[in-house]
Amino acid sequence: MLTVYSDQHRLHAPAFEILDGELTPVFEKPERADLVLARVRERQLGPVALPSSYGLAAARRVHRDDYLDYLAGAHAEWLAAGHKGDVLPYVYPVRSLRQLAPRHIDGKAGYYAMDASAPICAGTWQAAQASLDCALTGLDALLAGARGAFALCRPPGHHAGTDFAGGYCYLNNAAIAAQAWRDAGAAKVALLDVDYHHGNGSQAIFYRRADVVFASIHGHPADEYPFFLGYADERGEGDGLGSNFNYPLPLGSGFALWRAALDDACAQIARSGATALVVSLGVDTFKDDPISQFKLDSDDYLRIGERIAALGVPTLFVLEGGYAVADIGVNAVNVLEGFESAQR
Amino acid sequence: MLTVYSDQHRLHAPAFEILDGELTPVFEKPERADLVLARVRERQLGPVALPSSYGLAAARRVHRDDYLDYLAGAHAEWLAAGHKGDVLPYVYPVRSLRQLAPRHIDGKAGYYAMDASAPICAGTWQAAQASLDCALTGLDALLAGARGAFALCRPPGHHAGTDFAGGYCYLNNAAIAAQAWRDAGAAKVALLDVDYHHGNGSQAIFYRRADVVFASIHGHPADEYPFFLGYADERGEGDGLGSNFNYPLPLGSGFALWRAALDDACAQIARSGATALVVSLGVDTFKDDPISQFKLDSDDYLRIGERIAALGVPTLFVLEGGYAVADIGVNAVNVLEGFESAQR
Repeated sequence: MLTVYSDQHRLHAPAFEILDGELTPVFEKPERADLVLARVRERQLGPVALPSSYGLAAARRVHRDDYLDYLAGAHAEWLAAGHKGDVLPYVYPVRSLRQLAPRHIDGKAGYYAMDASAPICAGTWQAAQASLDCALTGLDALLAGARGAFALCRPPGHHAGTDFAGGYCYLNNAAIAAQAWRDAGAAKVALLDVDYHHGNGSQAIFYRRADVVFASIHGHPADEYPFFLGYADERGEGDGLGSNFNYPLPLGSGFALWRAALDDACAQIARSGATALVVSLGVDTFKDDPISQFKLDSDDYLRIGERIAALGVPTLFVLEGGYAVADIGVNAVNVLEGFESAQR
Repeated sequence: MLTVYSDQHRLHAPAFEILDGELTPVFEKPERADLVLARVRERQLGPVALPSSYGLAAARRVHRDDYLDYLAGAHAEWLAAGHKGDVLPYVYPVRSLRQLAPRHIDGKAGYYAMDASAPICAGTWQAAQASLDCALTGLDALLAGARGAFALCRPPGHHAGTDFAGGYCYLNNAAIAAQAWRDAGAAKVALLDVDYHHGNGSQAIFYRRADVVFASIHGHPADEYPFFLGYADERGEGDGLGSNFNYPLPLGSGFALWRAALDDACAQIARSGATALVVSLGVDTFKDDPISQFKLDSDDYLRIGERIAALGVPTLFVLEGGYAVADIGVNAVNVLEGFESAQR
């Protein structure tokens, strides 16, 4: 299987996020991608390609132009305003406040964010574009006939909404790839999110549409980030009603429960008639993940890949979360090896 | 003039807020109230009374019950979840996310907040109730016939909405007092907010009502906290249309411009026929305030008091912001002395 990877991800290395009421070193760090790449090579998964450059046309199909402009200029504006370090929002347009972007960068930072876990450093925008290029290059391999491809994306994307960053995410790589696949002719695309955290950005982007089916298995949002989306009763709206499937599982869940949810999600995807699949591949479901509460073991990831392969449709794997750095490479590549083994 | 003050404010002393992308010692600190009280005594402004205890009945007329329950239990829940220090939210229910309170304290903290500038420590709830008691005790003095009273409230209140904390504020003392004054029989109450920051909570609480007129003079929200409310085109909605007056002024404004806005605000209040006035008294309009950008001088605060007195209605002064600790006492008490001198 082709892996698409860019060194540009290193440009994105913000220092701190707010977690547990404290300023904490960012869990989503460059080392993550390095370890996944090392494992790809160790297991001889296949060729590793650099991404092509796609510009922002595909991103504009999902994100608002003003949000992209903000991301491009945010860090320079932050410094120009006399701040140091990374852009870190502190006030947000919640209930009873207006949805309009202020002029000052401090206000913009909150307007275009859902949390304080997506700081913007000098290289964030360049890295985010390279990350998206990885996803779109992987998609091109599928359009050229490959059965599977792995976009080793960093930063990840599934929390990013139409017009906001959050949870380490800036450009929603998986959602943009799904839209690009539609635009390239796929009548119906499925987006399966197996990250421990609900893919709130992806869900919201396609919530009123039937042409992109979204399914997510994740820690229950009543107890877990992102808290404000990912409940089972969210089934889509308008044309999208019946095309959104959430599987919120109790914290502490092991693979038996997780696997049952995956089976159901795959059954729904098969029933939908989707002929293309994007997988938001987070491996923070692992038992030793430092910020997550599921109990999957490394071998379980082989089974996940096999089950996804059984859907029998071209599949783009897009890396999302996973913070147990010692194991992230093994677990992510196990999904891909499980997928490949089921092809033979 | 009677001053109402409680030592309980000292129980509220959270350590850090997020400001300028950094974890910063909280600007809203106990010393502020001490200095105002010292100046009240130094100038022999009048008697200093302890507040009576009112319970939460008046608060419930403005805030949602679930929000009050949250405030009461938040810090204990935070500790029970294994966190240390103060409750500090990090993720917020912005656009495309659901407006529902999660079960976990980390989610609740974001649901019931607009920013990371209202941390909750062990004593916050008790201090917030005592602060409100100061406002309601001051109101009682007015109901008994006084012409003016000063509620030396800490923590402040005007950013707190129906169901969220923000900007050092938890219970909206001024809004609750205005509502209580209505409930005590005043047909129309005016709420004049002279703090440097727009009183977004107060505005939102009364935005659809004509019986409480709201006017605010503040740093322009395009450039200044709270960023997402306080624009001139916000004139009220429904029954409240025409009862909301915002005077957003450019950063760097001096007293000439500020005074013109005050004259207009007072003219609107007089025209409204309000027979009772609550003043959200922030003195962060001062030229040396460390986080604000207006240029008022200490003598200007005498003029503010005189102008407010000219409205000729019973007036409750409720302390809000002001962070130039060397001068906060002088400036706040100057408003009160200006008010009193105009009575003679």
